[in-house]
Amino acid sequence: MEITEAEREAVYKTIFSRRDVRGEFKPDPVPEEVLKRILTAAHHAPSVGFMQPWDFIIVSDDAIKRRIKEGFQVAHKEAAEMFEGERQETYKGLKLEGIMEAPLGICITCDRKRTGPVVIGRTANREMDLYSAVCAVQNLWLAARAENLGVGWVSIIHHKSLKKALNIPEGIVPIAYLCVGYVTAFHEKPELEKAGWLPRLPLESVIHYDSWGTD
Amino acid sequence: MEITEAEREAVYKTIFSRRDVRGEFKPDPVPEEVLKRILTAAHHAPSVGFMQPWDFIIVSDDAIKRRIKEGFQVAHKEAAEMFEGERQETYKGLKLEGIMEAPLGICITCDRKRTGPVVIGRTANREMDLYSAVCAVQNLWLAARAENLGVGWVSIIHHKSLKKALNIPEGIVPIAYLCVGYVTAFHEKPELEKAGWLPRLPLESVIHYDSWGTD
Repeated sequence: MEITEAEREAVYKTIFSRRDVRGEFKPDPVPEEVLKRILTAAHHAPSVGFMQPWDFIIVSDDAIKRRIKEGFQVAHKEAAEMFEGERQETYKGLKLEGIMEAPLGICITCDRKRTGPVVIGRTANREMDLYSAVCAVQNLWLAARAENLGVGWVSIIHHKSLKKALNIPEGIVPIAYLCVGYVTAFHEKPELEKAGWLPRLPLESVIHYDSWGTD
Repeated sequence: MEITEAEREAVYKTIFSRRDVRGEFKPDPVPEEVLKRILTAAHHAPSVGFMQPWDFIIVSDDAIKRRIKEGFQVAHKEAAEMFEGERQETYKGLKLEGIMEAPLGICITCDRKRTGPVVIGRTANREMDLYSAVCAVQNLWLAARAENLGVGWVSIIHHKSLKKALNIPEGIVPIAYLCVGYVTAFHEKPELEKAGWLPRLPLESVIHYDSWGTD
């Protein structure tokens, strides 16, 4: 099936305008059919040995969101202690999540035992199923952007907090907790770039030809 | 920036028609500007703390591809021993890579020390930088599909083989070795689904509401 030039440009537009959203969530509900479409996109991610190791927990209950938020606060406080001086002040001032504001949370997990112990393609690299679940995250993120929905990945939370809040069984690994909702606007650039925390690297600086070498 | 309905459909078309390509590579070269576009898409993946931990090694030299292929063969032989009976026969009959046939290989890596020891968002979950590099893989894969380029992820190879073949320094973690090229056709469905290895799970079976529970 051929992708046309216009379709290709739509994909690039979506990729380049995708942002990690924290502060711009609107309370407007996400329609059921839109949620279904972005989950279907996630479910069509590549997976090692066609294992489809992911599950999606859709969080809309405020009491559960509050438990996630508390988990974030614990990990965020620990994290702040790791930065020094001015960096610490900047860190504390950053808005890093929209857990309570976003109408939906989506937790994506990985069931490492889904299809038995031996999985095609996971034999030399045990982490491949985790990576498949990450591909599902990225598919969902881009599908959401194509629906003009913002997504923010909350990584500042311990697995044990997430597992407790969402009743995730033993043996299931949390991969991502995403905040999802419509937004007032998408930032033109990543917020950490805008804030001067780090610059975008020149593409050429991360490309090598045939061998890492010194090029 | 608003994404229109037509653009959204283009994104879904790309997501749903993306395949893991092994047997359909054509030798036609990938133009420089096309390669640049898909790498730019990868470079615009989300990254924890805007760390951009990835590097891209572009492999077009046949001697280097051959070393990668040899690495695959070692890991593939080990893997075959792990399957039993009929499963083993089926496994041995599957075409699992197109290393020599694809005009390009792209190895994506993760530099865990790129921006120092403390990274925003990686404090509670050390694996977040690896996951960022996986998001770059998925961005590249979708961009490639939008360019009508096939991509196959070769995961049946040990890190040490990849690192030796590509001269990857200590401390840099290989994430993916991708075969990239134009194709005779994209399969309508994933090959392992078509071969009856595993069925696609019903989406509803992997969705939970608010809590894992028993739903």
